[in-house]
Amino acid sequence: MRVRVKDPGMDLKDRIPWFREVSRRKRWLVGVSGGADSVALLHLMVEAGFRDGVVCHLDHGLRGRASAEDAKFVRRMAMGLGLECEVGRVDVAARMVARQESMETAARHARHRFFVECGKKHRCYRVVLAHHADDQAETVLWNLLRGSHGLKGMSLVQPLVVENGEKLEIHRPLLDLRHDELVGWLKDRRCRWREDGSNRQPVAIRNRLRNEVFPLLDEISGRDAAMALVRGAADHDEMREVEAWAVGQANALDPQGRLHLPVLRELPPALQRAVVAWFLQRSGVLGPDRCLLGRALELLDPEASPAVNLPGGGWLRRRSGRLSIEGRSGT
Amino acid sequence: MRVRVKDPGMDLKDRIPWFREVSRRKRWLVGVSGGADSVALLHLMVEAGFRDGVVCHLDHGLRGRASAEDAKFVRRMAMGLGLECEVGRVDVAARMVARQESMETAARHARHRFFVECGKKHRCYRVVLAHHADDQAETVLWNLLRGSHGLKGMSLVQPLVVENGEKLEIHRPLLDLRHDELVGWLKDRRCRWREDGSNRQPVAIRNRLRNEVFPLLDEISGRDAAMALVRGAADHDEMREVEAWAVGQANALDPQGRLHLPVLRELPPALQRAVVAWFLQRSGVLGPDRCLLGRALELLDPEASPAVNLPGGGWLRRRSGRLSIEGRSGT
Repeated sequence: MRVRVKDPGMDLKDRIPWFREVSRRKRWLVGVSGGADSVALLHLMVEAGFRDGVVCHLDHGLRGRASAEDAKFVRRMAMGLGLECEVGRVDVAARMVARQESMETAARHARHRFFVECGKKHRCYRVVLAHHADDQAETVLWNLLRGSHGLKGMSLVQPLVVENGEKLEIHRPLLDLRHDELVGWLKDRRCRWREDGSNRQPVAIRNRLRNEVFPLLDEISGRDAAMALVRGAADHDEMREVEAWAVGQANALDPQGRLHLPVLRELPPALQRAVVAWFLQRSGVLGPDRCLLGRALELLDPEASPAVNLPGGGWLRRRSGRLSIEGRSGT
Repeated sequence: MRVRVKDPGMDLKDRIPWFREVSRRKRWLVGVSGGADSVALLHLMVEAGFRDGVVCHLDHGLRGRASAEDAKFVRRMAMGLGLECEVGRVDVAARMVARQESMETAARHARHRFFVECGKKHRCYRVVLAHHADDQAETVLWNLLRGSHGLKGMSLVQPLVVENGEKLEIHRPLLDLRHDELVGWLKDRRCRWREDGSNRQPVAIRNRLRNEVFPLLDEISGRDAAMALVRGAADHDEMREVEAWAVGQANALDPQGRLHLPVLRELPPALQRAVVAWFLQRSGVLGPDRCLLGRALELLDPEASPAVNLPGGGWLRRRSGRLSIEGRSGT
């Protein structure tokens, strides 16, 4: 993939606004697989003056002997940098079977579990991860193909509730940097890393997006397709923020928490849809699709049928100029 | 490209909501190249009860003898359907040279010019075109790669100002249907069409997106990538509508048409950006990019430098708690 280095004279760490926005004096957990990306993240943080990092390495039990070498490498690197280090081990394959999860999901849940354990020990629930622009572009494209209806990527800061209700805050300061830039930076400094860290078990689809789709798009367009998607995702995030503000501003809830139809009818159609989508979501209807939203919006017509069945049970009902959700467990 | 037919029992024309939303008794200009898509559009309109269509065919002068055959074919088809027919001819190649336009741009401008002429003659400036879901998906992907920062496609209804200030309204009722569905529909009815109508001069990039990228994405994802993009574009359109409403609601203009900083500062950052983008656009700054917007937003800080240069001349200046545009010709 062609990489345009923005300003070769500019140090990589000056291109990471997150470094200026968060406190360097606080403690941070840092997820380190031993691969180039997370090794670069760790060195960048140390160079930028983060003193109280805790290196967290999880052996996924998927790579046999190489796993033990990864763990040894990470432990030694942390020691060299004067940082604490936690190494955990899970059997992701067993978890996949036991919980009927995909490998990607099982590995992600296991990592979150591990970070929570590290958090308890070190009294810090902020985790920094090394996802970069290529990861982001793949995520955006994959979400789009799976039907996310927009350019939805990973967030710079993501609050997360893990099983048992424990909380983590994931930070991803490298989302605007390319993998090749991180590797180049490590090479310039003669830093070592492990090829194929256990933290990233690339799925077949991701590999194909990376190795086939993006190079083809770059070649056809003569542009950097990954960065186009990364910028698109940033814009999409901002449009969602504006949408959330608009939904609040529309002020369509009555004091009983029902949607007030006379208010709703005065809004432009796109905002009606956004308000109804938000209303369904807060009542636990996961990601209402265009089809359900279309039927729900038909309820605005006083002549139309007064109720729409909801996936997962219950219905959205029009009664006395209000929309409310009925017959749903938990409401 | 794999096509999922939504409901095989449902007639194609019942899947075109536009047919129910516009008046069938009005006159409509219909752009017909003679290729499958526009022939299907014309037959669908006639079947749906549109009586007063004017078939408009432009020979782009790019296909030699085949062009004359196309025109003859279209004229005969219109006659068979009892519709009026206008055939025009331009030399797109000459126009490309004279105006330094790409072939796609030159051809599009020539078509618009031709539709305006037809409009004058028939007193109707509404043109129906046969762009379908595959065209839309290619447009969305191409815009994204070129940096549109979102899933921007063609609109169902597009008001257009042509050279000399003349107005057209372009309608695209087939945007949700696949090319293969249109061809299947024509075959079922034993309708004839011309392979490779002159109206669509596919550009190399479009061809490669169609023939290489979409089949690869379909294969990797096991889904219909084109429809994912088409749906994404529809959602993007709606988010833009909500954004426009939010910008109006933010009410950040003072009576002199300047941006009122105390109001702007109270808004969430994503909406500040949207308001400033809108303010620059209405002052003629074309598609302000993230970089310019970032610098413009720095003006909110009373300690920062009070002016930002604008592309095309002039600057955005902070003065007495307001932002205004100065030194720009025409403002």
